[in-house]
Amino acid sequence: MIIEQGSFAVGGTVITNPGTFNPYNPTPEGQTFHGDHAYVFYQIPTESKKLPLVMWHGIGQFSKTWETTPDGREGFQNIFLRRKFPVYVIDQPRRGNAGRSTVPATINPIPDEQQWFDTFRIGIWPNYFEGVQFSRDSLTLNQYFRSMTPSIGTIDANINSDAVSKLFNKIGPAILVTHSHSGGMGWLTALKNQNVKAIISYEPGSGFLFPDGEVPSPKASSAGTLEAVGIPKEDFMLLTKIPIVIYYGDFIPEQPSNNPGIDGWRVRLEMARLWRDVVNKYGGDVTVVHLPEVGLKGNTHFPFSDLNNIEVANLMSKWLKEKGLDK
Amino acid sequence: MIIEQGSFAVGGTVITNPGTFNPYNPTPEGQTFHGDHAYVFYQIPTESKKLPLVMWHGIGQFSKTWETTPDGREGFQNIFLRRKFPVYVIDQPRRGNAGRSTVPATINPIPDEQQWFDTFRIGIWPNYFEGVQFSRDSLTLNQYFRSMTPSIGTIDANINSDAVSKLFNKIGPAILVTHSHSGGMGWLTALKNQNVKAIISYEPGSGFLFPDGEVPSPKASSAGTLEAVGIPKEDFMLLTKIPIVIYYGDFIPEQPSNNPGIDGWRVRLEMARLWRDVVNKYGGDVTVVHLPEVGLKGNTHFPFSDLNNIEVANLMSKWLKEKGLDK
Repeated sequence: MIIEQGSFAVGGTVITNPGTFNPYNPTPEGQTFHGDHAYVFYQIPTESKKLPLVMWHGIGQFSKTWETTPDGREGFQNIFLRRKFPVYVIDQPRRGNAGRSTVPATINPIPDEQQWFDTFRIGIWPNYFEGVQFSRDSLTLNQYFRSMTPSIGTIDANINSDAVSKLFNKIGPAILVTHSHSGGMGWLTALKNQNVKAIISYEPGSGFLFPDGEVPSPKASSAGTLEAVGIPKEDFMLLTKIPIVIYYGDFIPEQPSNNPGIDGWRVRLEMARLWRDVVNKYGGDVTVVHLPEVGLKGNTHFPFSDLNNIEVANLMSKWLKEKGLDK
Repeated sequence: MIIEQGSFAVGGTVITNPGTFNPYNPTPEGQTFHGDHAYVFYQIPTESKKLPLVMWHGIGQFSKTWETTPDGREGFQNIFLRRKFPVYVIDQPRRGNAGRSTVPATINPIPDEQQWFDTFRIGIWPNYFEGVQFSRDSLTLNQYFRSMTPSIGTIDANINSDAVSKLFNKIGPAILVTHSHSGGMGWLTALKNQNVKAIISYEPGSGFLFPDGEVPSPKASSAGTLEAVGIPKEDFMLLTKIPIVIYYGDFIPEQPSNNPGIDGWRVRLEMARLWRDVVNKYGGDVTVVHLPEVGLKGNTHFPFSDLNNIEVANLMSKWLKEKGLDK
């Protein structure tokens, strides 16, 4: 039961070309270009909860992240609509349906899917991890690979968090749900907008913000080095004002591995724990959940669309209830 | 009341790079690239009609065409869901959320919006046409310009109609609703797939298919020359087997104009009428409706999102009923 649904652009900028537009002989002179907005599709169920969920995809992805799963089941969009939350799904600026980019882009079809299979922790191509919560048929893999779409130009964390902040201006207090690369941009958005009332972050990938002077040293992995980011203490303190939960899935090693597909996540989980400790030291409320530790085994980098995604959603619902965010 | 909704990719191809993938030192060697699919979002209302509507956007556009209007009202997606049709909205291959393109693309932010304002017949920039069914506030224009998104590489009518034909394989008999540039690709899709049970085409822009030997001569306009396309007679005959209705809006001149924004539509409307006559001569059922002639004044190139879009929808509903397509 959906009472209202629709779509809109939010944020962005306008390029205005000098000169005068001549309708009888049009050239770029005197014309405009609106770009760098986010695109948002929203649905509001009947008798809905007060705080909407704003769902933001990760790298190479778009709103599909939260929609139908690669094997054809319901994703978090539908699951949380059924649980009576208004749901807003985003395409971030320069991605998917928000493709009007103010910067030039060259996009080449470079074969890269086996690397994503490994980096998203489905297995070590062509083998699946034992017990992985991912359907092993070719139709699923076909849908999975087709759920990617390129960036039109560079990914700009400031432009992206500006657009999402403007979304929170428009809709008011809401809960931000991030995945992977939007994790770091989610913290930035919370600094910009106090309508971000809570953050649920699945496998944040980078951009952990620490107070200047307390930035941990970079963490090396076989997938590259992860660096934390320093910001002024007073900005950092804003992150102590809202409840935050971070989830990581399975197949993340404790010790360094020469498999870059999994080793990058080892240092991210370590960094997330360091970050939790510093935010909480200053009065914050950050929880880091490594899913296998609470009994959820076999999750990939996309827990919300894995085969056990109802259990993953139940865990999120439980946290929302504990924090009084599901009224 | 939505009973089911979701999204999926359909159609497309796979590039397979030679070599062997090495997970410990990944390069493009031995990797794949899935691209050139369409992206589809669908919703099925309770107690739904038998034949779904498949809505396909035009040039520079994506699914937004059918969603919330630029001034914030309901578009054809919601209007026809309320009228109990299952609705499928498409992003065609290499567009919007279907951005994985198998060909390289260079995309530049070239200011072009005043030209679209004119070509889409809102007015002659910066003036609106008198009586135009378009809200004259800056917020509307902002949303309107942000409803465009670039093609990732060339638009390929064959690839696009292949993907949409595969959608009709998947969902079975349905009604295709096209706009502008998808008009011509819609005829192609009907040639490829007999599950296309009817076509409703808003302002088809090109690709009118005539039997070889009966192709009309090219039509010159100040917006360029419009050429019809010849195909074998036996293929053409497939277009005589289904009901087709074509709608054009207002502000289309009878006589040649030096304003390319409107003059291109003059020759398209003329060509549509020639096409109707030839299809009907061979037993077809094509209706061309010039909206002002049936009392709907002020429509732009986007009648389905104009201020009077409920009346435009009513006209479409009436046609569906007449043809027995709304059971």
